[in-house]
This record gives sequence, C-alpha cells and structure tokens, in this order.
Amino acid sequence: MDKLLKAEKAILAFLEDYAKGYKNSPDGLDTQLIVDPKRHHYQLLRIGWSNKKFVHFCVFHFDIKGDKIWVQVNETEELIVDELARRGISPADIELGFQPEYLRGAGLPAAFA
Amino acid sequence: MDKLLKAEKAILAFLEDYAKGYKNSPDGLDTQLIVDPKRHHYQLLRIGWSNKKFVHFCVFHFDIKGDKIWVQVNETEELIVDELARRGISPADIELGFQPEYLRGAGLPAAFA
Repeated sequence: MDKLLKAEKAILAFLEDYAKGYKNSPDGLDTQLIVDPKRHHYQLLRIGWSNKKFVHFCVFHFDIKGDKIWVQVNETEELIVDELARRGISPADIELGFQPEYLRGAGLPAAFA
Repeated sequence: MDKLLKAEKAILAFLEDYAKGYKNSPDGLDTQLIVDPKRHHYQLLRIGWSNKKFVHFCVFHFDIKGDKIWVQVNETEELIVDELARRGISPADIELGFQPEYLRGAGLPAAFA
C-alpha cells in the first residue's frame, strides 16, 4: 500500500476508535473529527457549550509531512507511537512535533528509559 | 449556486485572504489552512516553535451545519458577519457559536447598537 495512504488509514482508525469513548459523554459537547485529505491534517476536537462555558478543545492533531507522521497535539495519556505501531506504522516514521528539536528522535531521557 | 457550495467558497476566500497577512511573519510559525470538505469544518491555524515555545493556535474555526455557517472561533477583531456578507453571505445565515444561546440572533445589546 502507498505509504501516505497507509499513514492516513492508521491515523483515522486511531482517531475514530478514540472518539467512541466520548459517545455517552454527559458534558453535552460535540466530538468533531476533522480530516483534510488534501493538505493532510487530522484532528479530533471537542466543541460546544458545557456548564455555561464555551469549549473548543483540540484533543489530537496529526499532520503528514513528507513520509513522516507529525503528532502536533496529544492532550491525552495515550502512547501515540504504540497506538500507531499497533496499526502498522513504524516508530521511525513518527515525529513528536510538540517536543523540542533537541529531544526529537533521541528517545527517552535515561531516567525514563 | 448551491447554498452549501456558496458558503464554502465564501469561507475559503476569507480564510485564504486572511492567511496572506502571515506571509512574512517573523515568528517562524506555520500557517495551516484546514479544510474538511466532507464534514464541513474549516480552520486557520498557527503552529510551530517560536521563542522556544510550541504554539498551536486556532485563529478561526467555521462549521457549516444545515443551511447555516457557524463561527466557532474568531481570535481576531475581524467582523466576520461583515467579511462574509462582502463575499455574498446573508447575515441571517451566520450563527456565532461562541456566543451563548440567549445572545444569538438577538443582535447587539442596546448599549452597543
């Protein structure tokens, strides 16, 4: 399978699986899956009015740039690399955009390894 | 023209025009236009590393739901209703989602009218 299609498929499968957890959420928020198939941006968003406050919360944001998946936002404790690996993506093809460049690709600091 | 297509065209024209203002921005951030043509979500996002901090900032977020354009996020002082009206959209077809329901459609409070 084409690498880009495979990456997109894995991201969408993960986001759709994760979104199921909000199905019976009592907070009244909508869950938006946002897919830009042309520019390769993917988000899971929680949006709406809850407790008289407006909420616009990006849970996950992925981009595909070149042959890499960039994780730009992960507001959960899900281990994205593991989740995508389980869906056929090599960890070497994932960059954590929210990590500073000096940490990226370096693996975990020794204290956490 | 089909109403949905017309709404989409107006939103994209506005977002693309607005994005031009970031072209020579010195902050090093990327400007992402996000278009989900299937679910009808539209965003303009600023993203990346600036001054050693990671920025993920949604400038605008529009949805098309039914025959209305919902403005979910506007982090600028642009008057969205005017901007969309200039692009052929009737103010009656625009809802400000970030305003509480009791204000929506009521127009400005008397003090501002």
